[in-house]
Amino acid sequence: MATKLWEKNFEVNAEIERFTVGRDRELDIYLARYDVLGSMAHIKMLQSIGLMEKDELDALLAELRNIYRDCTEGRFVIEDGVEDVHSQVELLLTRRLGDMGKKIHSGRSRNDQVLVDLKLFIRHELREIADGVMTLFGELQEKSERFKDVLMPGYTHLQIAMPSSFGLWFGAYAESLADDMLFLQAAYRMANRNPLGSAAGYGSSFPLDREMTTRLLGFSSMDYNVVYAQMGRGKTERNVAFAMASVAGTLAKMAFDACLFNCQNFSFIRLPKECTTGSSIMPHKKNPDVFELIRAKCNKLQALPEQITLIMNNLPVGYFRDLQIIKEVFLPAFGELKDCLRMAAYIISKMEVNRNILDNPMYDPMFSVEEVNRLAAAGMPFRDAYRKVGMEIENGTYRADRNICHTHEGSMGNLCNDRIAELMKSVYDGFGFSRAEEAEKELLK
Amino acid sequence: MATKLWEKNFEVNAEIERFTVGRDRELDIYLARYDVLGSMAHIKMLQSIGLMEKDELDALLAELRNIYRDCTEGRFVIEDGVEDVHSQVELLLTRRLGDMGKKIHSGRSRNDQVLVDLKLFIRHELREIADGVMTLFGELQEKSERFKDVLMPGYTHLQIAMPSSFGLWFGAYAESLADDMLFLQAAYRMANRNPLGSAAGYGSSFPLDREMTTRLLGFSSMDYNVVYAQMGRGKTERNVAFAMASVAGTLAKMAFDACLFNCQNFSFIRLPKECTTGSSIMPHKKNPDVFELIRAKCNKLQALPEQITLIMNNLPVGYFRDLQIIKEVFLPAFGELKDCLRMAAYIISKMEVNRNILDNPMYDPMFSVEEVNRLAAAGMPFRDAYRKVGMEIENGTYRADRNICHTHEGSMGNLCNDRIAELMKSVYDGFGFSRAEEAEKELLK
Amino acid sequence: MATKLWEKNFEVNAEIERFTVGRDRELDIYLARYDVLGSMAHIKMLQSIGLMEKDELDALLAELRNIYRDCTEGRFVIEDGVEDVHSQVELLLTRRLGDMGKKIHSGRSRNDQVLVDLKLFIRHELREIADGVMTLFGELQEKSERFKDVLMPGYTHLQIAMPSSFGLWFGAYAESLADDMLFLQAAYRMANRNPLGSAAGYGSSFPLDREMTTRLLGFSSMDYNVVYAQMGRGKTERNVAFAMASVAGTLAKMAFDACLFNCQNFSFIRLPKECTTGSSIMPHKKNPDVFELIRAKCNKLQALPEQITLIMNNLPVGYFRDLQIIKEVFLPAFGELKDCLRMAAYIISKMEVNRNILDNPMYDPMFSVEEVNRLAAAGMPFRDAYRKVGMEIENGTYRADRNICHTHEGSMGNLCNDRIAELMKSVYDGFGFSRAEEAEKELLK
Amino acid sequence: MATKLWEKNFEVNAEIERFTVGRDRELDIYLARYDVLGSMAHIKMLQSIGLMEKDELDALLAELRNIYRDCTEGRFVIEDGVEDVHSQVELLLTRRLGDMGKKIHSGRSRNDQVLVDLKLFIRHELREIADGVMTLFGELQEKSERFKDVLMPGYTHLQIAMPSSFGLWFGAYAESLADDMLFLQAAYRMANRNPLGSAAGYGSSFPLDREMTTRLLGFSSMDYNVVYAQMGRGKTERNVAFAMASVAGTLAKMAFDACLFNCQNFSFIRLPKECTTGSSIMPHKKNPDVFELIRAKCNKLQALPEQITLIMNNLPVGYFRDLQIIKEVFLPAFGELKDCLRMAAYIISKMEVNRNILDNPMYDPMFSVEEVNRLAAAGMPFRDAYRKVGMEIENGTYRADRNICHTHEGSMGNLCNDRIAELMKSVYDGFGFSRAEEAEKELLK
Repeated sequence: MATKLWEKNFEVNAEIERFTVGRDRELDIYLARYDVLGSMAHIKMLQSIGLMEKDELDALLAELRNIYRDCTEGRFVIEDGVEDVHSQVELLLTRRLGDMGKKIHSGRSRNDQVLVDLKLFIRHELREIADGVMTLFGELQEKSERFKDVLMPGYTHLQIAMPSSFGLWFGAYAESLADDMLFLQAAYRMANRNPLGSAAGYGSSFPLDREMTTRLLGFSSMDYNVVYAQMGRGKTERNVAFAMASVAGTLAKMAFDACLFNCQNFSFIRLPKECTTGSSIMPHKKNPDVFELIRAKCNKLQALPEQITLIMNNLPVGYFRDLQIIKEVFLPAFGELKDCLRMAAYIISKMEVNRNILDNPMYDPMFSVEEVNRLAAAGMPFRDAYRKVGMEIENGTYRADRNICHTHEGSMGNLCNDRIAELMKSVYDGFGFSRAEEAEKELLK
Repeated sequence: MATKLWEKNFEVNAEIERFTVGRDRELDIYLARYDVLGSMAHIKMLQSIGLMEKDELDALLAELRNIYRDCTEGRFVIEDGVEDVHSQVELLLTRRLGDMGKKIHSGRSRNDQVLVDLKLFIRHELREIADGVMTLFGELQEKSERFKDVLMPGYTHLQIAMPSSFGLWFGAYAESLADDMLFLQAAYRMANRNPLGSAAGYGSSFPLDREMTTRLLGFSSMDYNVVYAQMGRGKTERNVAFAMASVAGTLAKMAFDACLFNCQNFSFIRLPKECTTGSSIMPHKKNPDVFELIRAKCNKLQALPEQITLIMNNLPVGYFRDLQIIKEVFLPAFGELKDCLRMAAYIISKMEVNRNILDNPMYDPMFSVEEVNRLAAAGMPFRDAYRKVGMEIENGTYRADRNICHTHEGSMGNLCNDRIAELMKSVYDGFGFSRAEEAEKELLK
Repeated sequence: MATKLWEKNFEVNAEIERFTVGRDRELDIYLARYDVLGSMAHIKMLQSIGLMEKDELDALLAELRNIYRDCTEGRFVIEDGVEDVHSQVELLLTRRLGDMGKKIHSGRSRNDQVLVDLKLFIRHELREIADGVMTLFGELQEKSERFKDVLMPGYTHLQIAMPSSFGLWFGAYAESLADDMLFLQAAYRMANRNPLGSAAGYGSSFPLDREMTTRLLGFSSMDYNVVYAQMGRGKTERNVAFAMASVAGTLAKMAFDACLFNCQNFSFIRLPKECTTGSSIMPHKKNPDVFELIRAKCNKLQALPEQITLIMNNLPVGYFRDLQIIKEVFLPAFGELKDCLRMAAYIISKMEVNRNILDNPMYDPMFSVEEVNRLAAAGMPFRDAYRKVGMEIENGTYRADRNICHTHEGSMGNLCNDRIAELMKSVYDGFGFSRAEEAEKELLK
Repeated sequence: MATKLWEKNFEVNAEIERFTVGRDRELDIYLARYDVLGSMAHIKMLQSIGLMEKDELDALLAELRNIYRDCTEGRFVIEDGVEDVHSQVELLLTRRLGDMGKKIHSGRSRNDQVLVDLKLFIRHELREIADGVMTLFGELQEKSERFKDVLMPGYTHLQIAMPSSFGLWFGAYAESLADDMLFLQAAYRMANRNPLGSAAGYGSSFPLDREMTTRLLGFSSMDYNVVYAQMGRGKTERNVAFAMASVAGTLAKMAFDACLFNCQNFSFIRLPKECTTGSSIMPHKKNPDVFELIRAKCNKLQALPEQITLIMNNLPVGYFRDLQIIKEVFLPAFGELKDCLRMAAYIISKMEVNRNILDNPMYDPMFSVEEVNRLAAAGMPFRDAYRKVGMEIENGTYRADRNICHTHEGSMGNLCNDRIAELMKSVYDGFGFSRAEEAEKELLK
């Protein structure tokens, strides 16, 4: 039976501190540069409403710019005994500028400070994910065009059904990303609102100019209601996570297909050597490790919205420490998805396809439907055409005519990749990334 | 031990039919009117490309309009022995028009037929949900304005923390709905693409005019790639389910608050009598059944995206019968959410608030922070102000000054409800519902 | 925009009743016979502690037996305007016996009444599931023995890797069920405790004899603490759902394999004709609909524990109406899983295997590892053996020796099906089903 | 737009290695000591069947014991460039003993090696969790006894309903743990089977003595079928995760209650000072951070089974690299749950309760039900008693008689804590921990 540790040698307070600080020190590194940006906007506003002197502002801004540079260059650390990123930034400022450093906290609380950090972080990361999606999209479209004439069997119920093509297969995943992008944009728009000024979730008696910080940080609007600004914690993460899960779902499905088509029983594709592992004694074995890992990581990611929901669900209004735990699962997810997108783009860019799949007579029956349509189009009643071809197949006299001609929009012969690209571009352009980018640049000047 | 039923009296084929048909007959009723619309657009297109005569078209359209009316007036049923809605419509047509009725299937398969049904159904239902959200939003904003001066305690960690107001509380949930609306719109945009013409997921050798059906059905674009059109099954449902889950999350949280605030230990609100159950022997007991059921139904709904994900995940490209099962959980979800929205709007519209909450001295300490700020603003160093007020509280001499004055955007004194309403309106307008509506009207003329 | 229905023609009270009653009338049918059993035990106990006369008891028992028979013979209905099963039973009793009928509620509340109904229902259904598992287990073991000498390729990473056999494949799923049975038993043991007497979750001032009802209903113990008895609602369903999800996971995986092996690119198995759908024009197409539906239903079922968790999570102690909603997803799940088990057993019983898979030289390389082992066992250093075989494969001179001889426990040559069967039997015997069965029989005498 | 990194400065191979190795080096530390144990049993068996000399065995065992000591004393590391724990152990052995070190891999593969590591790890950790549960159980029972006479209100619908007691409240959570223990045991029994000898999932041509390794490692049986042994990967983790989630559910609910009861509107309990954070200016504020973190961590943990399901679901038979990703979420979960158990036990041990809750007349009406029962028991018809008390309450003349006397099993006056403890003990004893413990000790001698 377990000893009650605290009765013996359990250092209660140290244990409790370890338990409550948890992984904050490590996780807050993700937020550091955004914390600095948020503080810069906040103190500019404080000065504008008379709560800070111009020379104080200048001194603080100068130091904050230094800290920002440390963050982007990987030098920023949270020291032992310092609880979180907010304390660490304040510590650095007071070390250098004395008590003036504490002024960055006037008129706000840790609650709206971490909220603005998260929003700026999400905004930045969603842009990177959108860019990663665009890269993969480009590779898929390129492959779709390059292999548009290479036929492959199309399956329904995993049964050989109809002729398909690599043009269709690659192109389908590109178009899937265009739909995912809609959700990334909804997430971006939700995240791109300013929570600063909501303080602990009930506002402040200071005459804060929230319009100003909204403009300085390049947010498209603010989270107006201060109670809602706080209530957005958890909800924002969940919705952003869902948008990522949508992308992840597309990647996982594509990876599943690729692992299947890489199986010797299909042998439809050839993966780049450096993305597989094999065995010299089984030269045909090309384990598609990279795609398996993409699939698994993306499937893990698909559980993220539910995980966040479970943490925050049925909590009444107002801040709870519970929300801190969401960071553990949420912050690292962006890096994982970006990794998967990059790996997927690489592997697609190098993927080769088997141009002779349909030489195998096993696939012949799938041309029979086309044959029936041809006979019908030529005037034979459909039922008779159907019976004639069925009989030929049964008698073994059926010869597949592989000249198929699909011309309608989105079919093998008319992939519409350019129109899909337009669709994608119009969604991408709708994010309005430049506004945020310019605001951040201006702030850092 | 269980008998192997089939060795005795197990009617194998009947059992298998029951198992495979499942609840399709019941569920397809949801889709019937959209199936008719899809067929109308399809045959107009068939005639335009020469695959149907004008008189055939007219006869079929006339009968389809009749069937449509049966659907909207609740008379449409799927007869015993008829497998699904597509077969039932065809049966009705052939009964009335003979073999001509079968022509509605030329150039498509059940796969793109059910896809277009689902898309039209989703489009219609999402509009109703968006409207239900608007109604609730309006009620919440009205209550926020009406009770904007009624103070209530604001909690953090469920500990009394800062003054808040009913203006903030009601207004927060209104603003939350504005963010949810972003996801409803992403879902709408994803659903509002035309899959018709993708046939079994590999297109058709007929020279279908997919632009025409896209226009006739009022879709904003098509699912171009035919493989993607099919791949959208399951994915569309999951993403739509997530958008609904976002709304449901807001409702569940609001319901949780209301159940808490209805507890006698808080007594912040009074629910309409008809929405509670009580006991004559315990007159204080007002069980908030309606809010509890809203909460539970909305929490159930929050599991829907994951449920759909589990059904469709790790399936390779192409149609599988698995996708049929998604209908069981997906189709009824809209009605449940609309119900919850309506009930929530009703209960909010009738809700009364306790105007005297803060008479209880238990809440006094939350004004202390304001007092410190006041002293600090008046020139006393912050630490001294903090110490002074702390001491007064300790000595029991502290008297809360309840005149709080928050003026910044989104604070108690400046709720910005009008700007939140503008935000909401701009999202709502972005759906472009009228295009779909007009197209459907035109088609039914 | 949606009309506020209640301002016009919204029949508020009717709507609210519809919303709150929900699907209770339909769902309570599942519980009816158990409600009767619970009442029989309860009134026997009431009479034993002097709260009911012997002649009252006899009259009530006689009528309850009649109602029980109606339940088992499908005649029991919940009439319009009657809220739930408890009210319906009382109504029937008072119709026949007058006010005496109301006495069945003395000393309990609807809360412990529905708790005991659920526990008895679960107990009964888990037994049926366990029996269904046993039947499927038997079929799998039979097939494993029958086809123990038929080789098939074994895959890792879906790459051809090592020789395997149908003996192993069928046998693996049998053994998987033996592990699932452990969780069914844990669920059974949790459900097999008596909540009766906990009243509304805080006990009763009547001197109830809970030992007696525990014995009469054949429970293995009681849920002692009355607060815990109530707290078990939701938790019990979630844990039972997980045990079912474990079985469902095994079925879904087996179904996935079967759908894959049924693909023409594998052609490892032949499914019974009546479990597939095809096309006369594509005679090779055998869509494995039944297995696809088993997979989808079982995957849906795997979401059930999370769904229940979301409904009940973060609710404080005590009854909430939320718990009622769990019935909607929980009660029908048993029938669905039993259906899947029965279908799976049938399809396995009729499944044929391809005895000539390995004639295809594509599979030869998987014998190379055996060859290396053979040479090594014969004395050649491992590295040399490895190099020699690798060279032969490269040169195309390698000839696979298909005589493989695995002798250790659980290998192709030594399947240990008898020992797996013993394992399964020992778990099955551990449920102690007879105790419950005998108690119910005794009660109904 | 993102650059295609690999076209410029993307070190493809390094990136791919980073991606595929992932967090294996860090995670395998959890498994190191079990890897050593598994190897010790394996080589003893190899020697017994003539595949290793006695002196080789002795030399290897001696070094493995050294490595084991390094593991338990925190000195074991996986060096840069070494892929995983298996390679690191082999590297250490070959450094010290030359080529002989490689012999530990004869007759097995990494697949069954990591399987046995996981099983031994799980077995060890489940024991620690069971012990942690026992400690918390003890604290809860102690508090239940100590405060058995302190009344508190019992709520239904979060409405004041009936008298309850701290004896009931603490005792309920203790009993809840007894049910959770059933699932921990099922998980333990599932994990406590020997997969060693299944090699890559298809067995081995070596005449392995799997009975011997089963006995040496103290497993209760083996995973017989080698295909099933491999198939258990992922499934075992999911089922173990569910058992942990059951415990976590109990903790989260208890933590939720405690956070609620700690709210000033209730003021039912007082938490140990070191487990709360406050504010000198708001002395009444005692933020229950530790309980909030327990709740959040346990809610996160409740998502784990679904997360694992998503990763492994719909994968066909045989090993996939996907399974590696499960380690990332699975291995750290044990430490988190043990932490929560320990913190919960501490905080419960120090928790104080408010003995005067019911002095507040707000709670009086809950005694009215008792009063009605009392009058009825004394002969007044129930309806009359009900009306009489209802009238008194309405007239304000009702005086609550707080002398309540519940005597039946599990009620306030008869908590049955001893019988719950017996129940718990019988489950705990059923694990049979000593067998595993003794086997490991013997192996390390």
